[in-house]
Amino acid sequence: MSPTRNARHIFNEIPKAGLIEPGKHTVYDASQTIDLDNVPLNGGFLVKTLALSLDPYMRGRMRDPSVKSYSPAYPLGQPITGYGIGKIVRSEHDTFKTGDYIYGVGMPHEEYWVRADTTLLSVVKNELNLPWSTYLGVLGMPGMTAYVGWKEYSNAKPGETVFVTTAAGAVGSLVVQLAKLQGLKVIASSGSNDKVAFTRELGADVAFNYKTESTKEVLEREGPIDIYWDNVGGEVLDLALEYSNVHARFIECGMASAYNPSGEPYRLKNFTHFIAKRITLHGLLVIDFFATHKDAFYADFSKLVKEGTLKYKEDVTRGLETAPQALRSLSDGSNTGKRVVVLADD
Amino acid sequence: MSPTRNARHIFNEIPKAGLIEPGKHTVYDASQTIDLDNVPLNGGFLVKTLALSLDPYMRGRMRDPSVKSYSPAYPLGQPITGYGIGKIVRSEHDTFKTGDYIYGVGMPHEEYWVRADTTLLSVVKNELNLPWSTYLGVLGMPGMTAYVGWKEYSNAKPGETVFVTTAAGAVGSLVVQLAKLQGLKVIASSGSNDKVAFTRELGADVAFNYKTESTKEVLEREGPIDIYWDNVGGEVLDLALEYSNVHARFIECGMASAYNPSGEPYRLKNFTHFIAKRITLHGLLVIDFFATHKDAFYADFSKLVKEGTLKYKEDVTRGLETAPQALRSLSDGSNTGKRVVVLADD
Repeated sequence: MSPTRNARHIFNEIPKAGLIEPGKHTVYDASQTIDLDNVPLNGGFLVKTLALSLDPYMRGRMRDPSVKSYSPAYPLGQPITGYGIGKIVRSEHDTFKTGDYIYGVGMPHEEYWVRADTTLLSVVKNELNLPWSTYLGVLGMPGMTAYVGWKEYSNAKPGETVFVTTAAGAVGSLVVQLAKLQGLKVIASSGSNDKVAFTRELGADVAFNYKTESTKEVLEREGPIDIYWDNVGGEVLDLALEYSNVHARFIECGMASAYNPSGEPYRLKNFTHFIAKRITLHGLLVIDFFATHKDAFYADFSKLVKEGTLKYKEDVTRGLETAPQALRSLSDGSNTGKRVVVLADD
Repeated sequence: MSPTRNARHIFNEIPKAGLIEPGKHTVYDASQTIDLDNVPLNGGFLVKTLALSLDPYMRGRMRDPSVKSYSPAYPLGQPITGYGIGKIVRSEHDTFKTGDYIYGVGMPHEEYWVRADTTLLSVVKNELNLPWSTYLGVLGMPGMTAYVGWKEYSNAKPGETVFVTTAAGAVGSLVVQLAKLQGLKVIASSGSNDKVAFTRELGADVAFNYKTESTKEVLEREGPIDIYWDNVGGEVLDLALEYSNVHARFIECGMASAYNPSGEPYRLKNFTHFIAKRITLHGLLVIDFFATHKDAFYADFSKLVKEGTLKYKEDVTRGLETAPQALRSLSDGSNTGKRVVVLADD
């Protein structure tokens, strides 16, 4: 068989500060080919990438490898990796058979790839025939983040008040809905009027655009808050500390405001409230819960998605060449739903 | 009967910043008298104060009442209040009988007082015949703080490493011992060579004087830490975040470094580690646990004290006139054990 194009989305340059630039910090490269029939598998399997997930945490991996963090830095010159869905094209491995669909993290942004290591990959059965893209969003890492964080750390009681930041995002929009299902008052912050309208559709009691309305004034008027779902960190975290109730729970899911340091990093001033208000705080990383919670998550959430109880928004683009811009959109506020790049339907 | 002196320890002036000054911010006043036989009880009870506890949190109550915090501000011109032991001299109340000993918080720093409200006061039976002062220290609020915080929030496992600040203090010294009883490695920070020697006697594996040795270097060499028992806040909290392990537990018990702001309050820089390391943090205030935990606490700890397993140090002075200096000593680093002022033996 003649060689097939095997395009890649490559980490090309470490961003010094500010936003990442498509074509500079990450680039689409279509120069590589692969012989699908004859590429040696060496006991492994050949995967055709069907869909790839773009997530905010990726920005944190685009750093100098000498800076330690919870995920290793991406190596320069190599494809970005992340969550994805693939189809097994050929296999010499016992775990994955030709025709299987697999889900997992560490999938390279590459049209085809060969591997023998099954770590963090698992066969996915789509028993309710939901679109594959849902397995990267509402049924993927963002969905599981909302599910696990809310279940394990919110200790939510009906009538309490929760403040959700980036409330129109892949995680935040689900947190808003979980809170409403449980009878809480939801204060939802997002960065555009369209997003505000979306969070209101999801049931948020107080939906506001933090770019045009003061978060401080909203919290002063609508608080105090019992639960803070933090996707931003920085100054908003300080405000949440100021306007939280005694025994509030803080779920630290993301600190987007720390990912694009345009100068001095923010320094927190209200941390003495941790004691004064006996606050409980949990740093949340979904991979810690994958093994223990994935079965319950798939069962609970795929039912809620199928029956239409949980609403979700996806920003799907087609072709790996759209990946650099899709990645960039996560940090400039232009995305409006779970970012997925679809490479092929099957 | 002729009038009896009824001296008081009065909150006289709000300290603007820095240390409190005996005779200025709090004063001893012996001008008042009381007629013990004839003072009307109006259905209440007359208490003779036997012993009073001086604790670091009191500094936080000596503030402008417009500043909100977990405990109300002390009213100016009134006696300081706090934990104490008293004896019922006369009673018209069903709950307390003449001759009962009572323990509780909200006791005025006054030799005699009349009250009808029993809130936060309870009869104490000293069944193992321990000194009354122990009921304000190892068996009082500091002991219960260590007991409850360690039991509920440490999630300690043998072989883990805990970092304890103000480790020679009333709470810290007990945390050091609880950790050693459970097989942890203990890093103990305190502010004088005598205190370092004391924490070493208690079993601390690494005991250092933070005034002469760099906390950062100690944590770099002896960490990472799995549990941080925070009595100081500020810059040390930042260092604990930097040198903590994944899934570390932070028990926020005190932020002494925030109580004496000598200029700009400290601002925390390493709070993004809460996510990166999936840290769990709990603000701890012992009164939240009094009702649910006091029976188990008295049972467990009075046994450990009686059999000599738990060591403790008391700084006992006699006479209410020693209270202003005793209070001051809690914030200038000069105290070396639980501060108790004994007014009378019985």
